[in-house]
Amino acid sequence: MTLDKHWYTEIYPADGAAFSLKVKEKLHDVQTPYQRIEVYETEGFGTLMTIDGLVMVTDRDNFIYHEMMSHPVLFTHADPKNVLIIGGGDCGTLREVLKHPGVVQAQQVDIDEGVTRAAELYFPELVDANSDPRAELYFDDGIKWVADAAPGSYDVIIVDSTDPVGPAEGLFSEAFFRSCHSALRAGGLIVQQSESPLFHQKIINDMHSAMQRAGFGGTRTLNFPQCSYPSGWWSATLSRRVTPEGSEQGTALTEFRERDAAGKLFKTRYYNAAIHRAALTLPEFMVR
Amino acid sequence: MTLDKHWYTEIYPADGAAFSLKVKEKLHDVQTPYQRIEVYETEGFGTLMTIDGLVMVTDRDNFIYHEMMSHPVLFTHADPKNVLIIGGGDCGTLREVLKHPGVVQAQQVDIDEGVTRAAELYFPELVDANSDPRAELYFDDGIKWVADAAPGSYDVIIVDSTDPVGPAEGLFSEAFFRSCHSALRAGGLIVQQSESPLFHQKIINDMHSAMQRAGFGGTRTLNFPQCSYPSGWWSATLSRRVTPEGSEQGTALTEFRERDAAGKLFKTRYYNAAIHRAALTLPEFMVR
Repeated sequence: MTLDKHWYTEIYPADGAAFSLKVKEKLHDVQTPYQRIEVYETEGFGTLMTIDGLVMVTDRDNFIYHEMMSHPVLFTHADPKNVLIIGGGDCGTLREVLKHPGVVQAQQVDIDEGVTRAAELYFPELVDANSDPRAELYFDDGIKWVADAAPGSYDVIIVDSTDPVGPAEGLFSEAFFRSCHSALRAGGLIVQQSESPLFHQKIINDMHSAMQRAGFGGTRTLNFPQCSYPSGWWSATLSRRVTPEGSEQGTALTEFRERDAAGKLFKTRYYNAAIHRAALTLPEFMVR
Repeated sequence: MTLDKHWYTEIYPADGAAFSLKVKEKLHDVQTPYQRIEVYETEGFGTLMTIDGLVMVTDRDNFIYHEMMSHPVLFTHADPKNVLIIGGGDCGTLREVLKHPGVVQAQQVDIDEGVTRAAELYFPELVDANSDPRAELYFDDGIKWVADAAPGSYDVIIVDSTDPVGPAEGLFSEAFFRSCHSALRAGGLIVQQSESPLFHQKIINDMHSAMQRAGFGGTRTLNFPQCSYPSGWWSATLSRRVTPEGSEQGTALTEFRERDAAGKLFKTRYYNAAIHRAALTLPEFMVR
């Protein structure tokens, strides 16, 4: 079988694999100062947004990613009030964060306003919480934002970035994690998208060591399916700023407010308390 | 990006999606009386076998599928001795089954000898247990085999089939499940590959009802990642022949020999006791 010009294809060169979606029409094509943003109407996945040729969001499967980037970390924190999202310009993570009634402030800092403008035009579902008075949208350099933050400003930092090339590269560095560590209160949590367990084991391992060198306590990776990302299987890595009194909190990333998660009053399509626990489970090749 | 002739592509027409692997060379191309079997050497996934243009096995990710088709069902049964595999001609499931020391007989019945011959040539790792004296390989019609089996012949039946089109279509029918029900001992278990939770929810639901109409007790679907299959996310559906005394066994498919699984003396790369439990967990959209 060969694919004609009616297909959008993302190639994963290091793994000799590719994923394609059949396209009805291109809706949007903008080169911003940072990256090229394209939006397509597809045959089977609804609307698709790509950045520099890489799939960012589709209507059909973004719910898994956005729910898994937000609810596990928020239910792991005892009482998250101030949340910072770095990246996340499509606003899908922000929307999930705002479902938590205890959150009093959610700042989203994406370097590229173009992503949010495209989401407003083509992904109305993802931006439908942007008018929430607790939401603050900034278009700024996330690395500088965290470095400049007053110490202990946040309970939770969510790094919802693109791949570790281009503008997002610095978001995978020890220096960035040091800034996050300082910007978090004691007991505060960071979660970052950490690529594919099948394709990118090295990126995951490097992230664990960089977070630990930056002063964080234990680290833990959660796995979940994500059809339109490389290998169809994705991960997020979680860590905690340990309290001065002891390190036990830092290693208990498998403990979460299970009762609150099971009794949550908002709707989800992928996440639930049992899925949270399941996502924490490592396959044999990741245990070793 | 477009893919040149050096790529093998499988299109999922109903979902407007496609998965491709970069190919170094084609090693094998045989039209059997049943189907076309091709084998390729790929750049990133090792050896690839396709049947009628659909991915069956790659070196890189078949371990997940084969382990999840065998170990959960075998650790759910109290003491599996006689195992029947319908399909499974690449012998990867048979190999995992034979890792269980309590199994005394494992019959594999694939309609197409050509699949096993290709596996012998190109997937030596998958056939390395074929000389085990407990292994019996038959090339025959699995539907007829089960219909002709003496009642109560097996403890476990594993249906490791291709998609529900072509030769495998009958393996998804109530009539076939009736035969399986009769061929199993009381308390015996069936597990069948049941396609993608994201793409094929209807096939999964239909399988649950067909199994129940055929006399089986409760049914349960396990989910796992499988990069080279449609959507990168796959499932297997499990059911039990209920004992005459009561139905409680039939609904306890979440109970398994967890201690035996945790203390297993053989190696796996994906499966472990915690992953077994995690795979039983349903995302919110499958609970409803």
